[in-house]
Amino acid sequence: MRKKKENITGPSLKVIPLGGLEQIGMNITAFEYEDSIIVVDCGLAFPADDMLGIDLVIPDVTYLKENIDRVKGFVITHGHEDHIGALPYILKEVNVPVYATRLTMGLIEHKLEEHDLMKGTKRKVVKFGQTVNLGQFRVEFIKTNHSIVDAAALAIYSPAGTVVHTGDFKVDFTPVYGDAIDLQRFAEIGRKGVLALMCDSTNAERPGFTPSEKTVGRTFDNLFEEHKDSRIFVATFASNVDRVQQIINSAYKRGRKVAVEGRSMVSVIETAIELGCITIPENTLVDLDTLKNVPAEKQVIITTGSQGESMAALSRMAFNMHKKISIGAGDTVIFSSSPIPGNEKSITRIINELQRKGADVIFQDVHVSGHACQEEIKLIYTLVQPKYAIPVHGEYKHLKAQAKIAAMLGIPKENIFILSTGDVIELNEECARVTDHVTTGGILVDGLGVGDVGNVVLRDRHLLSEEGIMIVVMGLDSETGQLISGPEIVSRGFVYVREADELIEEARLIVDEAVQACLDRGITDWGKLKSTTKDVLTDFVWKKTKRRPMILPIIMEV
Amino acid sequence: MRKKKENITGPSLKVIPLGGLEQIGMNITAFEYEDSIIVVDCGLAFPADDMLGIDLVIPDVTYLKENIDRVKGFVITHGHEDHIGALPYILKEVNVPVYATRLTMGLIEHKLEEHDLMKGTKRKVVKFGQTVNLGQFRVEFIKTNHSIVDAAALAIYSPAGTVVHTGDFKVDFTPVYGDAIDLQRFAEIGRKGVLALMCDSTNAERPGFTPSEKTVGRTFDNLFEEHKDSRIFVATFASNVDRVQQIINSAYKRGRKVAVEGRSMVSVIETAIELGCITIPENTLVDLDTLKNVPAEKQVIITTGSQGESMAALSRMAFNMHKKISIGAGDTVIFSSSPIPGNEKSITRIINELQRKGADVIFQDVHVSGHACQEEIKLIYTLVQPKYAIPVHGEYKHLKAQAKIAAMLGIPKENIFILSTGDVIELNEECARVTDHVTTGGILVDGLGVGDVGNVVLRDRHLLSEEGIMIVVMGLDSETGQLISGPEIVSRGFVYVREADELIEEARLIVDEAVQACLDRGITDWGKLKSTTKDVLTDFVWKKTKRRPMILPIIMEV
Repeated sequence: MRKKKENITGPSLKVIPLGGLEQIGMNITAFEYEDSIIVVDCGLAFPADDMLGIDLVIPDVTYLKENIDRVKGFVITHGHEDHIGALPYILKEVNVPVYATRLTMGLIEHKLEEHDLMKGTKRKVVKFGQTVNLGQFRVEFIKTNHSIVDAAALAIYSPAGTVVHTGDFKVDFTPVYGDAIDLQRFAEIGRKGVLALMCDSTNAERPGFTPSEKTVGRTFDNLFEEHKDSRIFVATFASNVDRVQQIINSAYKRGRKVAVEGRSMVSVIETAIELGCITIPENTLVDLDTLKNVPAEKQVIITTGSQGESMAALSRMAFNMHKKISIGAGDTVIFSSSPIPGNEKSITRIINELQRKGADVIFQDVHVSGHACQEEIKLIYTLVQPKYAIPVHGEYKHLKAQAKIAAMLGIPKENIFILSTGDVIELNEECARVTDHVTTGGILVDGLGVGDVGNVVLRDRHLLSEEGIMIVVMGLDSETGQLISGPEIVSRGFVYVREADELIEEARLIVDEAVQACLDRGITDWGKLKSTTKDVLTDFVWKKTKRRPMILPIIMEV
Repeated sequence: MRKKKENITGPSLKVIPLGGLEQIGMNITAFEYEDSIIVVDCGLAFPADDMLGIDLVIPDVTYLKENIDRVKGFVITHGHEDHIGALPYILKEVNVPVYATRLTMGLIEHKLEEHDLMKGTKRKVVKFGQTVNLGQFRVEFIKTNHSIVDAAALAIYSPAGTVVHTGDFKVDFTPVYGDAIDLQRFAEIGRKGVLALMCDSTNAERPGFTPSEKTVGRTFDNLFEEHKDSRIFVATFASNVDRVQQIINSAYKRGRKVAVEGRSMVSVIETAIELGCITIPENTLVDLDTLKNVPAEKQVIITTGSQGESMAALSRMAFNMHKKISIGAGDTVIFSSSPIPGNEKSITRIINELQRKGADVIFQDVHVSGHACQEEIKLIYTLVQPKYAIPVHGEYKHLKAQAKIAAMLGIPKENIFILSTGDVIELNEECARVTDHVTTGGILVDGLGVGDVGNVVLRDRHLLSEEGIMIVVMGLDSETGQLISGPEIVSRGFVYVREADELIEEARLIVDEAVQACLDRGITDWGKLKSTTKDVLTDFVWKKTKRRPMILPIIMEV
């Protein structure tokens, strides 16, 4: 934690990212003006590769808990997990109202129900163009486009000035559902003067313009024409309602019936139907059992698992592990997605299996991104004309890429801030400076445990995963201190014991000898006996196998 | 193992891939004609993500061991690990002569020295155009181009006909070192009649032609010009001698000194210098200590770690963990490589860190592949005009992509074979058929242990890695059978014990009660006591935490 630096003069707005920088996911940012704090988004992160056994990661909100009296509410930009996923955990400790647009709130409510939090949580659905008052703040929700319906940017008005936060966005002039991004409103707000723009950096390295979601619809039409004689599977992201809409449209045009498979996708689609975010022609959507009675070339199955997740529907259908459907010769499988970094190998594993089974697999150019590329970022900057630029949403290299764009557009270098999570930046018309740093971090969730797995446990899991464990048990007489039982050695994950009898027996003798030698010299201190056991066994095992299993001596008093 | 099918009539050649299909790596293929067997390549595979703690994987060569009297030798196409890496392990069991070109043999010998096998291994360096006689086979080494110097294709002549095996290759009309691929010889051999072509499939999904290695040299010249005021780091593959040559050339033109960092790269370059495969202008290559005395803008450091390997030199220099160099502001880091699938996240982690430190990072378009794209594959097919096509080197989707190309070029579908590892295909002018299947597989190497880690150990490591272990120790009186010590519970990787005292104590009481209840009912069978312990503890822990650690009861007789 850095030392508190000098504050800036005059009333100022504080912006404090509590997560989401230096990583993808866990987006949460506090805005503070005097007695008022509002929080934008409350997302989770998926565990890094070295967080063995961890289910998800939520932000450390110590800062909010310490200032709970001033926290006025959560304002949520859209319904993706990295923006809403931590809400049910955080609301248990920071119970303040939640503001979001319609589908976003629908998805949040689904989570609150699972955590039995519906009753205790104040919620308000906000329309685009509408403004909510939160203490000294007013927050306006502005229509944007993204890979989920009802995504919003936020104009955050404070006495020290206005911040525009884009949320995750793209510019889609021809969206599938609803209006194009409200560029006029960005311009209007910009015209009145904007202190800072916090803009999505995810695609800041990519030149050009992200294509419209509608282009994917035309691709589906073409693919459905080319593969008119086969059963068609389409794998895509569970929450991309517009994508599902377009698949259904293409299916309907050709008289195909559609079934949706995969728990998370079924749940999102149900919510979208309830809220009217998706329009399904009569008798088009059926369940899997009904679909079976339709000729193969009249079937479309929309499924989860486009990232190669081994437990998702697509993987199970590919490896004959699904109860109702197997994919095989004559089927066409379309991946309407692009690999999230880290998932390449799992996806390839499924593509190989599908091809081996004889399916036709299409995995390129049936997807568009939901994030703004460089030209769209330039457009937003040009409309908003902020004094300060604070790139958000992305790893360092993405933030850096946006910073370059901002500089190219004429924003002075000293007005561009690449923040770290926990930085407190104070802003007003006169100046902007990082003045403090607050406690932040990721809290690991493993099963029901929130925060009970930390570095010690993770380090142990890592050790265990690489080389296994050798446990040495011995019983000492409580009166004489002499060895009356053991040492016995039990191992797991180290070596296949039935074929390593000799090694284990040799190890046992070496420990026995070392412990006896200690006892003979009158050493009865358990700590010493344990460390001796550890040392001789570690040495012996390394010499014999060049491995370093965890050695765990246990002494029993009898 | 499939049942032996009917043999084909007349004398025939058998081709038996013992590894390398369905996966990248572990290339090894046996060719058999009557009393003669030769083996092409002997590579290792790097462990899959679920092979926790495993260092490398080598092929199961049971088939060769069972037919050892007929095995005439190993013929090696080039010096990459996936073609030579298993040799030191396999030679211990199948000790036959090794044939390879100059640099390939140099790299093999380095391995043999490490395993103390130089004396016991017959070796012969083969020149391009030269033919070696191996029983009923003759094998000719043909010049190709690849991302390592001295790569060869093989023409394998047998009484049943000729097989051309490309090894890993590309067509480079303007190679950095040595000649272009000997296309004339491919044509000549093709003209005389070729039974089967076994061609590299790695890039069979990519259209067009792989650019010449020389294009990267021009890129280096441009980058060195653009970054003339900064210290330059170039990360690339350790074995790509031509790439290193070009970096040195660009450095020399601008009067820069070059140091090479990273154990594997230093070793390859030393071998390449000895064998004359690389030409270094005087006073250009220096060691790191000497380099320090040179102005920053006159330094170039060529390093390993382009795949984000956490222990490689680049990663250590990025994270300030290198003894001699740290990368920081003002430095330029060039990734002359492309990510091997699965390494994307590790590479991004380093790029982010380098940018955060202020370095300029260039990670696109400074690399060309070493493998043939679709047009090159077509060229080789058109020169060789084989009767049968057997795509090799690649996952299923790559083999399938090459099969499509072969079909497009007019090879009848029934003459194209996508084999599985272990298939025995018999070929002659009349027909070709898979007639048998032999035992194959991957043998896991962990430290000094070869094959002593199998599925049981891996499953345990996986369990341990996800949820850790709870060990329950109790002492039973050997005479009365009563509990006289414990139960004690020790856990690792499950939960941070200091904060879970209560949970562990509660668990202990529950086990105590369950075991006492058994003993009270006269149950003293250890198996029953252990299973009872496991059951009650698994239940309790699941209810409390929704986790399933490994439960390991240990009973001591006192």
